[in-house]
Amino acid sequence: MADQAFVTLATNDSYARGAMVLGKSLRNHSTSKKLVVLVGPQVSNPCQSVLKNIFDEVKVVDVLDSGDTAHLAMMKRPDLGVTFTKLHCWTLTHYSKCVFMDADTLVLSNIDELFEREELSAAPDPGWPDCFNSGVFVFRPSVETHGKLLQYCTEHGSFDGGDQGVLNGFFSDWATADISKHLPFIYNLSSIAIYTYLPAFKQYGGNAKVVHFLGKAKPWSYTFDRKTRQISGGVQEPAMHPSFLLNWWTLYASTVVPMLQEQYGDKPFHSGCVEGEDGSSHAQAFQPIPTSEERKEQWEQGQADYMGMDSFDNIKRKLDIFLK
Amino acid sequence: MADQAFVTLATNDSYARGAMVLGKSLRNHSTSKKLVVLVGPQVSNPCQSVLKNIFDEVKVVDVLDSGDTAHLAMMKRPDLGVTFTKLHCWTLTHYSKCVFMDADTLVLSNIDELFEREELSAAPDPGWPDCFNSGVFVFRPSVETHGKLLQYCTEHGSFDGGDQGVLNGFFSDWATADISKHLPFIYNLSSIAIYTYLPAFKQYGGNAKVVHFLGKAKPWSYTFDRKTRQISGGVQEPAMHPSFLLNWWTLYASTVVPMLQEQYGDKPFHSGCVEGEDGSSHAQAFQPIPTSEERKEQWEQGQADYMGMDSFDNIKRKLDIFLK
Repeated sequence: MADQAFVTLATNDSYARGAMVLGKSLRNHSTSKKLVVLVGPQVSNPCQSVLKNIFDEVKVVDVLDSGDTAHLAMMKRPDLGVTFTKLHCWTLTHYSKCVFMDADTLVLSNIDELFEREELSAAPDPGWPDCFNSGVFVFRPSVETHGKLLQYCTEHGSFDGGDQGVLNGFFSDWATADISKHLPFIYNLSSIAIYTYLPAFKQYGGNAKVVHFLGKAKPWSYTFDRKTRQISGGVQEPAMHPSFLLNWWTLYASTVVPMLQEQYGDKPFHSGCVEGEDGSSHAQAFQPIPTSEERKEQWEQGQADYMGMDSFDNIKRKLDIFLK
Repeated sequence: MADQAFVTLATNDSYARGAMVLGKSLRNHSTSKKLVVLVGPQVSNPCQSVLKNIFDEVKVVDVLDSGDTAHLAMMKRPDLGVTFTKLHCWTLTHYSKCVFMDADTLVLSNIDELFEREELSAAPDPGWPDCFNSGVFVFRPSVETHGKLLQYCTEHGSFDGGDQGVLNGFFSDWATADISKHLPFIYNLSSIAIYTYLPAFKQYGGNAKVVHFLGKAKPWSYTFDRKTRQISGGVQEPAMHPSFLLNWWTLYASTVVPMLQEQYGDKPFHSGCVEGEDGSSHAQAFQPIPTSEERKEQWEQGQADYMGMDSFDNIKRKLDIFLK
């Protein structure tokens, strides 16, 4: 149906690259839905042009300058700026139903069946499973709901400082009211789950339809060697990485980078790709190796070095010993 | 109703102490249900006597010597020994409905309302939230179900090597079929959740009804100083600990230890309690401080030093800085 759309959000050029890969992954799996990206005014013109090539609609949003109800709400709660931006998706009223997806998600198969679900459908958050994770959710655009959300946001704030806290506060019966609004976890497989219950990942992870690169280290934070297909980035063992990250980089390098190159023309831009092992080693050499204390702090802040020392393969190897 | 019971399992004297505290916490919160404990033959006579004082029924189970269907199943899958023992709870057919609770859980308020739920009701596991955590679940004893469970266990094994894998495999529609079978997370609040989504713990943790001391470090692994009310055990900062652990120790020291003392009489036994600060420091001095590498390995195996370096307060302090 033409009046249904996948929606994502890119507040800067880095997240714009994530949105490009997400959009491409949706197209590659033959979605019949429209693709919409909300972009912040900071997103550069070349990136906006590439987004226009991939998405049906690119909408610039900036709650600070909008002068609408969001602007008024914002004045009272400037701390919730990014959250207000995401809530903007409810204003897309030319669509009857939408699926919001964070720009750090990647689609692994066609997921158009999500449009059979009702607002607000989402997958549980592995950290606190009575909360839904707001990285993937089904919603119905509505000026009325948007207004109520802004009001809730202004009055109650967000218990976690982000959109997930607001949305869980507003749609507070998600955990108890209707099982059909619980998306299976394979529609929002957070990288954190791989670590906290590895046997379940082994059992169910192969069915993953959407992977969500949670944490501070995003796919676009790394460097990819096209020749060796190695991923590196501030880590001791760049050869270790889950295949999901390789999926992301393969798609980005093969389809998004050529589009960026075309837009940037002669202007230099950092693609994140290098050619040949020398380049890879070189990129690596500039990455400082964190101290044990820094690593501990990062881990405790949910920013494990998922691609390096705390990589899936590394942890799997240790757990395999433990599980035997 | 007299034909309904809380059921727990103690395979050794350590877990028996957990069961004693759990039983006491259920009694203290005025449950109207019967209390049943399944004990392994390794549980000592003094501990069995104390359990008999707290529980309405103490049933010795030993699948290896039982000669029944469990025994036959066991012969094919000796790796699932402990799992078979837990499944034994389905044979308690003189009760129409039961709530199973692991011996490392603690009740914080009356939870008799759980008996309004149907088999199989349980709370989500924070590691992989489409799986239920098998530390607290509502079930209906039935020889038929018990037989089917053993058969499933023998044929399919357990994807995680324990009862949780078997039960999630057998009751495989839990995630998608019936929201009333999703117990709110506050009925099985795992310590791991505190670390993975701290803002949600701040928001919802105050409503906790059952706390589950997941991981290798159990409450009874620590030492408690009755005078200073400090908990220590192989850690750098014994003063840091979540209040749940203090709840456990307060109940254990005040009600269970006197009963154990009576049973042991003149025979020496290790209560885990010390008197005065000297004793506390002394107990601490014998604990080796793990290397950073050991700690990392423990953390990755889900055995964080919850009461010490990785304590709630320590992580909270760091996250508070991060969240501001």
